[in-house]
Amino acid sequence: MEKVNEFKIEGRNAVIEAFRSGKTIDRLFILDGCQDGPILTIKREARKQDTIIKYVEKERLDQMSVTGKHQGVIAVTAAYEYSELEDIFKLAEEKGEPPFVIVLDNIEDPHNLGAIIRTANIVGAHGVIIPKNRAVGLTATVARTSAGALNYTPVVKVTNLATTIEDLKKRGLWFVCADMDGTVMYDLDLKGPIGLVIGNEGEGVGRLVKEKCDYVASIPMQGDIDSLNASVALGVLAYEIRRQRLR
Amino acid sequence: MEKVNEFKIEGRNAVIEAFRSGKTIDRLFILDGCQDGPILTIKREARKQDTIIKYVEKERLDQMSVTGKHQGVIAVTAAYEYSELEDIFKLAEEKGEPPFVIVLDNIEDPHNLGAIIRTANIVGAHGVIIPKNRAVGLTATVARTSAGALNYTPVVKVTNLATTIEDLKKRGLWFVCADMDGTVMYDLDLKGPIGLVIGNEGEGVGRLVKEKCDYVASIPMQGDIDSLNASVALGVLAYEIRRQRLR
Repeated sequence: MEKVNEFKIEGRNAVIEAFRSGKTIDRLFILDGCQDGPILTIKREARKQDTIIKYVEKERLDQMSVTGKHQGVIAVTAAYEYSELEDIFKLAEEKGEPPFVIVLDNIEDPHNLGAIIRTANIVGAHGVIIPKNRAVGLTATVARTSAGALNYTPVVKVTNLATTIEDLKKRGLWFVCADMDGTVMYDLDLKGPIGLVIGNEGEGVGRLVKEKCDYVASIPMQGDIDSLNASVALGVLAYEIRRQRLR
Repeated sequence: MEKVNEFKIEGRNAVIEAFRSGKTIDRLFILDGCQDGPILTIKREARKQDTIIKYVEKERLDQMSVTGKHQGVIAVTAAYEYSELEDIFKLAEEKGEPPFVIVLDNIEDPHNLGAIIRTANIVGAHGVIIPKNRAVGLTATVARTSAGALNYTPVVKVTNLATTIEDLKKRGLWFVCADMDGTVMYDLDLKGPIGLVIGNEGEGVGRLVKEKCDYVASIPMQGDIDSLNASVALGVLAYEIRRQRLR
């Protein structure tokens, strides 16, 4: 785990303040067994924002601490700021193109997330949407593997992917999710305002999210193993969308 | 650097023996300043096989050593065996398909190599060719990120990529290399027996290799940054070949 470009917030008041100001906390480390008032407040705020809490030993906190004054709590936040959904629509409008968004259902590997943001930028997508809980956030590794794309392509963190998909459908987008049991991508019409949903590395797209999608697209596979790397799958599908848009 | 599935050969005789038996050594560590007869013999063998030599301090060797008896030299070899070019042709013949090989011009990142072998397997390529020197070999990280594909897809290590491309052209293959200044991939006819050449992460395909290629293909890009991750680029191009083969 790299620390460059990651920002640590240490100590009870600082962490409470960070939550209350609306700052997105990627990970929260709390001293195992700590149960006093301020810590309970922090836990409550963390639950509201679906922040992952890790309970760790004092040695671990001491090691992570930059200030040496963690008071039993350290919050890690990305140096990169998340965008709003409106930024995606604005970018599409500026380019005079129908919106093209990429939705990631719990990508866990920061290298994959970085590579996906990089691909999203190059293929001409207008933004990437990730869920608040469980998935990896905009860490330093993501920033590095995105090869600078993080400075251009809006990444939006939402509380509930299924709800967000519903909202975006009302705004004219339709959604296609990647899954092996879908229609071969070449046989689908992938033009127009579109959201492409890519699932978690191990489990694929979750049931609730998949049910919200209009179509299920599959990449033809003829090998001995059964799945592509998530960032490669995204690249192949996103370029099929791009190819159809170009025609 | 992971060590699982990597095999260390320690001590002068063992290392000399390994070279002479034709075993492929991925990396060779020699005690800095060591100049006696056996070490000179090892260096000569290493040069013959284009093995990368790293000169290191005694502390480093002690730390790497499993046996505690390195005698100033440790060779690291992959637990995975390389295949022969004939294995690629045999696989294509078994499947009744025109050969489809992927040629990697000095991929340096083991995650990229692993993801590429994985994609090669799924897209239905019959093998991957990598150069002996400078590039990453079949390390444990490569094996892991290939998600098992390494057990099915032949990976061949050759001394000179340009010469190998020449030889394969005589056997009916034609070669397309990926580069930004090429013809948009959708406008090329990518059917038939084909070799797809992907370049190094930073520098792209080398001049000598590029000159041997029949066509240069580009992936359309409309983003703010200028290149895709190597394994994503391979996925997008390999699937364009697959799409054309399917039609």
